[in-house]
Amino acid sequence: MEPSLPPFSRVEYDRRLALVRAAMAAAGLDILFVEDPSNMAWLTGYDGWSFYVHQGVLVFHDRDPLWWGRRMDHAGARRTVWMGAECLHGYDDSFVQSTERHPMQDLATLIAECGHGAARIGVEMENYYFTARAFLTLQAALPDADLVDATALVNWQRTVKSEAEIAFMRKAARIVERTVDGVAERIEPGMRKNDLVAEIYRDLITGTGEDWGDYPAIVPMLPSGADAAAAHLTWNGAPFRKGEATFFELAGCYRRYHVPFCRTVFLGEPHAQIRRAEAALVEGLEAGLEAARAGNRAADIANALAAPLERAGIERGARCGYPIGLSYPPDWGERTISLRPEDETILEPGMTFHFMPGLWMEDWGLEITESILIRPDGPAECFCDRPRALIVKS
Amino acid sequence: MEPSLPPFSRVEYDRRLALVRAAMAAAGLDILFVEDPSNMAWLTGYDGWSFYVHQGVLVFHDRDPLWWGRRMDHAGARRTVWMGAECLHGYDDSFVQSTERHPMQDLATLIAECGHGAARIGVEMENYYFTARAFLTLQAALPDADLVDATALVNWQRTVKSEAEIAFMRKAARIVERTVDGVAERIEPGMRKNDLVAEIYRDLITGTGEDWGDYPAIVPMLPSGADAAAAHLTWNGAPFRKGEATFFELAGCYRRYHVPFCRTVFLGEPHAQIRRAEAALVEGLEAGLEAARAGNRAADIANALAAPLERAGIERGARCGYPIGLSYPPDWGERTISLRPEDETILEPGMTFHFMPGLWMEDWGLEITESILIRPDGPAECFCDRPRALIVKS
Repeated sequence: MEPSLPPFSRVEYDRRLALVRAAMAAAGLDILFVEDPSNMAWLTGYDGWSFYVHQGVLVFHDRDPLWWGRRMDHAGARRTVWMGAECLHGYDDSFVQSTERHPMQDLATLIAECGHGAARIGVEMENYYFTARAFLTLQAALPDADLVDATALVNWQRTVKSEAEIAFMRKAARIVERTVDGVAERIEPGMRKNDLVAEIYRDLITGTGEDWGDYPAIVPMLPSGADAAAAHLTWNGAPFRKGEATFFELAGCYRRYHVPFCRTVFLGEPHAQIRRAEAALVEGLEAGLEAARAGNRAADIANALAAPLERAGIERGARCGYPIGLSYPPDWGERTISLRPEDETILEPGMTFHFMPGLWMEDWGLEITESILIRPDGPAECFCDRPRALIVKS
Repeated sequence: MEPSLPPFSRVEYDRRLALVRAAMAAAGLDILFVEDPSNMAWLTGYDGWSFYVHQGVLVFHDRDPLWWGRRMDHAGARRTVWMGAECLHGYDDSFVQSTERHPMQDLATLIAECGHGAARIGVEMENYYFTARAFLTLQAALPDADLVDATALVNWQRTVKSEAEIAFMRKAARIVERTVDGVAERIEPGMRKNDLVAEIYRDLITGTGEDWGDYPAIVPMLPSGADAAAAHLTWNGAPFRKGEATFFELAGCYRRYHVPFCRTVFLGEPHAQIRRAEAALVEGLEAGLEAARAGNRAADIANALAAPLERAGIERGARCGYPIGLSYPPDWGERTISLRPEDETILEPGMTFHFMPGLWMEDWGLEITESILIRPDGPAECFCDRPRALIVKS
């Protein structure tokens, strides 16, 4: 409960650092700069809502990582990372959102001072927060360095979870189960959507027992009726109506670890079309869970899902899942593997996914999903334990 | 309350588009691509949590803007933008988080099809979501085009608010007033932080009367005691303790329009040091509000604040505010003007700022802030109406 301790043991961080250094060596990188807040937290424990300014972690082969960020956030880093104060470097506030100078100029100075001004430096070219201007500024300020694309280098090391991480995800699962139960209990025709979201947030953040809830990286989404054709609408003040399905795209979050879990509630008597889709979807989910075995490929899950959906005449045209774990906004996915026919990644024990075959049709939508853990043997384990079915309230 | 209508009149969008086109002409731009979700929403009404994949709006001089995004989000665009369906372009899901192709290749094709393959195209080089790789891919796919930095071109058009926007912000102000009242009422020693955050979210999202609450672009921050030295720590499950100050950095949000409002609660008898800081801070705020007049400069507010703080021996070393309005994560600021001594921007009627002189000291923190509106005459108007003082609960 002590806020000034990182959530994991030093052994766990050492494991992570070793994985990243090996990947850096394989890519021929001297040093690595990560700006992705999820990668920063996974490597160092750093936690705070400061990613709206430039910040990052420098990873070396032969010394502890350096946290680099706005000077104002130095105090937050001191309280959250496992490294000592000598590994924290804050830049002056005059760099913040300035048109005259850029924080990457400060980072370049720091890199040069560390003796890496002419190094081969990995940067995350395709990642939120590392802007086009950041790249060009860093390149101009380090003319002798070689900036190499290391997008998702750290993310890939995160795909197989440790026992400690899985324990956090189990807590997140309890939180989201409780939240979905609350939705089923409270929803009724005439209730305003925002009033239900207020209760959803209360459940998500109260948590379960000692386990307090953290903020999910995405806000609840819960479109109804024809609006459920749209995958990413957020709420408004409109009332729930009889005769409509509403999907609830939610995740529990424990210390930044996410377990998404989606269910759909129908108020009244479900129409035949959605019942047929439900049957096909559940059959597809079950086939996918069977295929989600160590040694199989990501594509096998997608293909297993597709068969019963095709038989029911449903074409999704979108991937059906992604890896999950530690995350910051704007996404709770890890952006490595995609569950889709072209992804040949071999599944390994300890990998965790949101198996997410949302159906967004012309004038209705249906989400029944599972967050899963790949086991050493047998089909995937589902993090949550709730009926795999449409929730009907008549 | 109808979700399928954009929140503003067509006249309002026309006004915005005219402003942006004039700025484009002044910068010699043929077309403009905006990826910033706040700019997208301000120009078209587009609303949805889909900014974790590449999307954007193309602005032309001689035709309606084009919404461009993931095909899955086409249905959300259809429900939220003012343009017709012919102005929506969705790209295939196989572009999403792929290592083989990039959505910017699809955007380049679209731009070329519109006859602008050799145009002078503005892009937001320093903006969340427009990644380094996005820029390089777009450049490679449009070898005859001239990509020009148009960072904050749209943001600058947003600085002066219309009456319709100010009306939204007044609703957001009522929501955050109610939320801060709830904090003062509920907080007590022994209460877990996350349990109070659960209530904060409930108040923020329930809203006031008919006015439902939207999600603020930043989560509540509420560090206590020595942790309040850190500006951007989020909550945990630790209890509030007697003898400690906790600052609450919050914003009300109505249809994406924000009014931040921060207050600090002391449980028990405040120590002399924080009382002295409070007195200097309130004096500084009042001096700053006096200086916040049309015709003065942004720097004048910062300088007016600094004088009483300096007399009390407090050096802040950070800017003391930023423009506010429509926003999406990760920031509720508009990233144009900064209230700091070097910013010479002339204040105009209708500009709105979060006047935010947070004090983050060695082992405590104090936030008393005001969201303000620059008036045609006289000092700034404060959006919220609550005592400008430390809240003491003994």
